[in-house]
Amino acid sequence: MSDKRVQLSHGGGGREMAELINKLFFDAFDNPILRREEDAACLHLGGDCAFTTDSFTVAPLFFKGGDIGKLAIAGTVNDLAMMGAEPQYLSCGFIIEEGFEISRLKQIVASMADALSQCGARIVCGDTKVVPKGCADGIFINTSGVGRILKPGISAHALKSGDAILLSRDIGRHGAAILSAREGLELESELSSDCAVLWNVVEQLIAANLEIHAMRDATRGGLSAVLNEWAKASNKGITLRETAIPVCDEVRGVCELYGFEPWDLANEGSFVVALPRELAEGAVEIMRRFGHCDQACIIGEVGEQHPGKVVLESAWGSRRYLDLPQGELLPRIC
Amino acid sequence: MSDKRVQLSHGGGGREMAELINKLFFDAFDNPILRREEDAACLHLGGDCAFTTDSFTVAPLFFKGGDIGKLAIAGTVNDLAMMGAEPQYLSCGFIIEEGFEISRLKQIVASMADALSQCGARIVCGDTKVVPKGCADGIFINTSGVGRILKPGISAHALKSGDAILLSRDIGRHGAAILSAREGLELESELSSDCAVLWNVVEQLIAANLEIHAMRDATRGGLSAVLNEWAKASNKGITLRETAIPVCDEVRGVCELYGFEPWDLANEGSFVVALPRELAEGAVEIMRRFGHCDQACIIGEVGEQHPGKVVLESAWGSRRYLDLPQGELLPRIC
Repeated sequence: MSDKRVQLSHGGGGREMAELINKLFFDAFDNPILRREEDAACLHLGGDCAFTTDSFTVAPLFFKGGDIGKLAIAGTVNDLAMMGAEPQYLSCGFIIEEGFEISRLKQIVASMADALSQCGARIVCGDTKVVPKGCADGIFINTSGVGRILKPGISAHALKSGDAILLSRDIGRHGAAILSAREGLELESELSSDCAVLWNVVEQLIAANLEIHAMRDATRGGLSAVLNEWAKASNKGITLRETAIPVCDEVRGVCELYGFEPWDLANEGSFVVALPRELAEGAVEIMRRFGHCDQACIIGEVGEQHPGKVVLESAWGSRRYLDLPQGELLPRIC
Repeated sequence: MSDKRVQLSHGGGGREMAELINKLFFDAFDNPILRREEDAACLHLGGDCAFTTDSFTVAPLFFKGGDIGKLAIAGTVNDLAMMGAEPQYLSCGFIIEEGFEISRLKQIVASMADALSQCGARIVCGDTKVVPKGCADGIFINTSGVGRILKPGISAHALKSGDAILLSRDIGRHGAAILSAREGLELESELSSDCAVLWNVVEQLIAANLEIHAMRDATRGGLSAVLNEWAKASNKGITLRETAIPVCDEVRGVCELYGFEPWDLANEGSFVVALPRELAEGAVEIMRRFGHCDQACIIGEVGEQHPGKVVLESAWGSRRYLDLPQGELLPRIC
């Protein structure tokens, strides 16, 4: 790549675009399906599959614990994993602002390739658009994904009374890390995003043949959004013990400074699972084998009281509803 | 929807986003898979499937013959159709600029629903991001699609000597229409984009059990880009008769005014087919049954001479290479 910056011609469908695709994208994402260069990738898929899409517009593009590239892979891979599906095939659509540095694009693409290698998923088709300067903010990435469902029936509608609610790790890191990066906050210790590919740990939960009722990563809207959606979809009540929910000191600090609640902040590598109480300890034990899940724990349970609602019990025994977040918390966190 | 414009909170993952999704997107794209509201859609797919993605950044958003919504559906449906695949399931990712009028969003979504209804494809999963004012230009849409391959083996690598090259209609309309819209050109008659969903005509070609070797819509880079890719991938030579390529007067006018060649201009509803010469007349006859293909014709053939190249024969018998377009012709045509 002789040019140092992305030009409009890199999205024009001609010689320059072919060069960008060949030299940068194919090298990083190399696989025989992608190399066929057809209008669409040919896949052999059998049986029940999951299909998902996510666009990524995060600002800043690079943050502690990740960048837009890692996020774009983790986000879509995790959406598949949360449905009990093996992340097999991904598509990748770039919208790049004219003048974007090729070196930064390379860095993002390398992050994507690295995240892919952690879970065995492959990018099999793509699209590149370049828009004139000022018409986008740097780069936006869409990834869509398809994968075979290994564990059918996992659903927000499948919560049962008596289910335990498990959380994989401390919450609020991604939202707090993005906010800190934007505000230029210097925190005592380094606060990094939880951004991670979750397929490996989910694969082990599936391999253990546990009866998982629901599973979801707590992204935009945080823990509050996921649990409210579950309670509503299943018409069950969820009770959480506030003291059981791990939150690191740095996230608590950011929350106090800006008046946020940690359960409203976005995560990109933290997930919740609902499964029968008697299976919960076993599941926690499996999750803790993975570094990023070593704080996995039971944070609450599902019952018939307060159907459609999430109840938060404080350390002093007081109870209040945890609502779906409202208003704009933090724009462009993913 | 009480608000008249899209707010940052509509992308926040909370209550306002749920409202936008429910009231606007679910109503327009209604189907039981989408309504499950899981992290990923569950599909039953059997055998060989095609998978494709496209991001749409066209400016202006509304143009003669279509808008970004119609384009977003047609583009992805056509990519599947060109691989001999039935367009079954689509994903849809919106990146919306804060302040975008809800009424325009509704219009775009209605166009999408209309295009979907023309081919039986369904949107089964989606994503909505809102970025602050000035960080995007109105709206960008990504669609990805999955569908069962009904006719396997169609490929840019499969051209054979003796194949005829068929073109479905006159070329250059989309690029010329976008350019005219931007420049505020008042042409004598109305020049409209060829933007169209091509599944219906492709379905008939497949049903006729014709031995189709290659098929592709001539989008970015136009007819030149497709045929150059085919020649290169198959290591064959393609010879075109310039007089056989239909170009309407309005497109000729725009080309003369701006110094473009019609074969370099983008199309969004024109496609080329390579198949054995003896099947060509039958294929043309099938294509002409469809209004938008009533100019379908044979424009050239495949041979062993000039491997990897496209040769254009003028009316006077002179010959020249038709190259892959270079430089930036027209930014943001799709």
